[in-house]
Amino acid sequence: MDLQDRKEITENISYLLHEQDIPKLKNIIVDTHPADLADIIRDMDDDERNEMFKLLDPETASEVMLEFDDVTREDLIKDLETSRLSEIVNEMDSDDATDVIATLPEPVANTVLSQIDTEDRVEVEKLLVHEEDTAGGIMALETVTVFDDQTVDDAIQVIRQKSQEIEHVYQVYAIDREGRLVGIVPLKKLILSSPETLIRDVMQRDVISVTAEKDQEYVANLVSKYDLLTVPVVDAHNRLVGRITIDDVVDVLQEEANEDIRRMAGISSEEALQETSSFRLSRNRLPWLFIAFVGELVSAFIMSRFNASLQQIITLSFFVPVIMAMGGNSGIQASTIVVRSIAMDEGGASNRWDMLYREFRVALINGLTFATLIFAIIYFWLHQPLFGLVVSFALMFVIVFSVVVGTIIPVVLHRMKFDPAIATGPFITTSNDVFGLLIYFSMAAAYLKWLQ
Amino acid sequence: MDLQDRKEITENISYLLHEQDIPKLKNIIVDTHPADLADIIRDMDDDERNEMFKLLDPETASEVMLEFDDVTREDLIKDLETSRLSEIVNEMDSDDATDVIATLPEPVANTVLSQIDTEDRVEVEKLLVHEEDTAGGIMALETVTVFDDQTVDDAIQVIRQKSQEIEHVYQVYAIDREGRLVGIVPLKKLILSSPETLIRDVMQRDVISVTAEKDQEYVANLVSKYDLLTVPVVDAHNRLVGRITIDDVVDVLQEEANEDIRRMAGISSEEALQETSSFRLSRNRLPWLFIAFVGELVSAFIMSRFNASLQQIITLSFFVPVIMAMGGNSGIQASTIVVRSIAMDEGGASNRWDMLYREFRVALINGLTFATLIFAIIYFWLHQPLFGLVVSFALMFVIVFSVVVGTIIPVVLHRMKFDPAIATGPFITTSNDVFGLLIYFSMAAAYLKWLQ
Repeated sequence: MDLQDRKEITENISYLLHEQDIPKLKNIIVDTHPADLADIIRDMDDDERNEMFKLLDPETASEVMLEFDDVTREDLIKDLETSRLSEIVNEMDSDDATDVIATLPEPVANTVLSQIDTEDRVEVEKLLVHEEDTAGGIMALETVTVFDDQTVDDAIQVIRQKSQEIEHVYQVYAIDREGRLVGIVPLKKLILSSPETLIRDVMQRDVISVTAEKDQEYVANLVSKYDLLTVPVVDAHNRLVGRITIDDVVDVLQEEANEDIRRMAGISSEEALQETSSFRLSRNRLPWLFIAFVGELVSAFIMSRFNASLQQIITLSFFVPVIMAMGGNSGIQASTIVVRSIAMDEGGASNRWDMLYREFRVALINGLTFATLIFAIIYFWLHQPLFGLVVSFALMFVIVFSVVVGTIIPVVLHRMKFDPAIATGPFITTSNDVFGLLIYFSMAAAYLKWLQ
Repeated sequence: MDLQDRKEITENISYLLHEQDIPKLKNIIVDTHPADLADIIRDMDDDERNEMFKLLDPETASEVMLEFDDVTREDLIKDLETSRLSEIVNEMDSDDATDVIATLPEPVANTVLSQIDTEDRVEVEKLLVHEEDTAGGIMALETVTVFDDQTVDDAIQVIRQKSQEIEHVYQVYAIDREGRLVGIVPLKKLILSSPETLIRDVMQRDVISVTAEKDQEYVANLVSKYDLLTVPVVDAHNRLVGRITIDDVVDVLQEEANEDIRRMAGISSEEALQETSSFRLSRNRLPWLFIAFVGELVSAFIMSRFNASLQQIITLSFFVPVIMAMGGNSGIQASTIVVRSIAMDEGGASNRWDMLYREFRVALINGLTFATLIFAIIYFWLHQPLFGLVVSFALMFVIVFSVVVGTIIPVVLHRMKFDPAIATGPFITTSNDVFGLLIYFSMAAAYLKWLQ
């Protein structure tokens, strides 16, 4: 649905809500995809939003709720009666129900848990123990499972039984009598095999599975590398405990890319566009700005220490922005490449030295290019060839230095189990500023000393 | 397969290649996933790589080739005989074959086209006309299609016929007798329905489809929003022409995220980590660095125009890095949020003003915070309260200015059909530097004038 359609429907709904034309509203709801309903409801004001949401049957309400961003969802849940909320959560898959319940205040969460089906409650409680960004945190417990000594027809019966509970079935998991995962059967295989065939004769035996504590980014890279539709989750004894489906992996990929990009820009945690509290937003961005601020104060302090040099040649200060910006930008280019290669698991640790050598060569070429340019410019503009040499040497040195730092820091952060993406943020650009200025002024001071 | 395993296998293969133990090598090949084989072969030196690749049967070779990055693939194809290459391409789906052929030099591409099956050639030629980053560029022509007046059993027969040609079947498309797409049948539905049921009675009628010229990012957003497994591609008359599967969409999502991140860092085009030519890499990064360089020279020029002010208070120059860095970082935070929201199609155009207002408020809070801090610092460090006021006002103004620019520019770029991601790169940071310094020195000059 494009923006124009959405706008028209939204206006239409506003009018119908005002007229209290419930039958027509219900027609619109039935005809509209839950993901679009979520967009429409999100853009309404609070009163309309609550009124409209009330009209949804529990199943549609559950689907719409899952499409909301965190801010809209919290807003809406605040105004919802607990019994209605429980009814909605009851409709969700175990993984989605867990995500919603995990965001509720403890007393509300407990009430909801006590009001949903016992079976669902047990599942949610099992899932709540997993960290949010691990395989366990994104898996669902509902699986279509058969024993490997059962037949294709048995598998079809299992699909039929679970048909209500599990909307999308992509594959059937085969386990042995000890519950260990031994194979996967694509639905296509089930369709093309005769009913009495044994599962063990049609299943694929090379199963790629993960344990619950694996990072979600690792799972996403597996799915992307091996073109998987689902990833089974197993325990330490290879017993099947759950499944991760590709639609959740798609969300993970977008989430992780956003997280990397945010960290590169120095924004602490996820920011929904629907977030309206300036203070919450500000708190989200201040920490990194503060680091940059302190770092640049160190720059100011360094420059004050070189006061004497600055007094002697005021032109020295003209090139502070050039030195800072060229070092900063070159460093960010290098670290961006390294950060992405780590995130996408390209190349092994053995290639890190190659990478450093590669970046070093690029930095030499780029550094030489700009060193030559700045020398020419200072020569023709200020007619100070010697001073030009100093600036051009410093620029070259700062570019190479920043690139080397930008290549090494992400690798080190990764080894220390930090997200390397923070390396491209204000943290590294600030330290590059500080060291860049130190290099620049030290060379200038040496030059002035030599002049005397 | 983790790094350790891969290393062991690689060493093992090196040894076996040296010993020319072909049977054992073939065993390893059969036991290893093509995606892992691709990793292993990529890390070999040229001779081993070619020797190993020769041992793969055409089907495995085609799968391995598709897993390679562009640089490795080109390297390998260079040393491949055209007849062997044709044999390999012949094994590929039409979309993958097209991608490979599109990268070949024209004479080689023509030879390969003349050597593959006629049917495949016709398909590839059809696909070659589409832009690489559109729905047409990523679609495959192979589809499992039935008429809506056929039965479930007919559909199963079609799947059986196409089973060889199409490895992964997720859904069956239903068309009417004019070839128009009218429905989709998930495999689960086929399994659970009796063979004589009519397709039109089991198909889902709300089909989300795209036309071939749609941008691949649009397709990816559809898949992510509506949790789709495949997206059918139709022509202007809604006739089915091809399909896009989720594994290709996963690749698109990663590609687009990488592209955004690269553009934010000012790197022109895709850089494979396997790229070893320093000059090619350097050419990829120089353009944006050059823009930054020219911009910062303007900064130098501005500072030279304020030479008189600088001579009077040398301390003015100490705070150049603070002003530049705080403006730059705040601007990048704002534009990152805006760029991502545009890429993920969050919120409509109607919300752009809300976004600007939101960012403005955040900038005010953050600006005030740092203005207060810098005033206190200058007061206690340099004991110059009036000068402190000038710097703190300038800092506040620069932060707000940079945030407003960082919010507006991506929206404008998007309207003008440019990728908004370039807005967070050196382009905007550099212009923020220049304007930031201009603001800072203008306020300082006014202050000096007022002192006299």
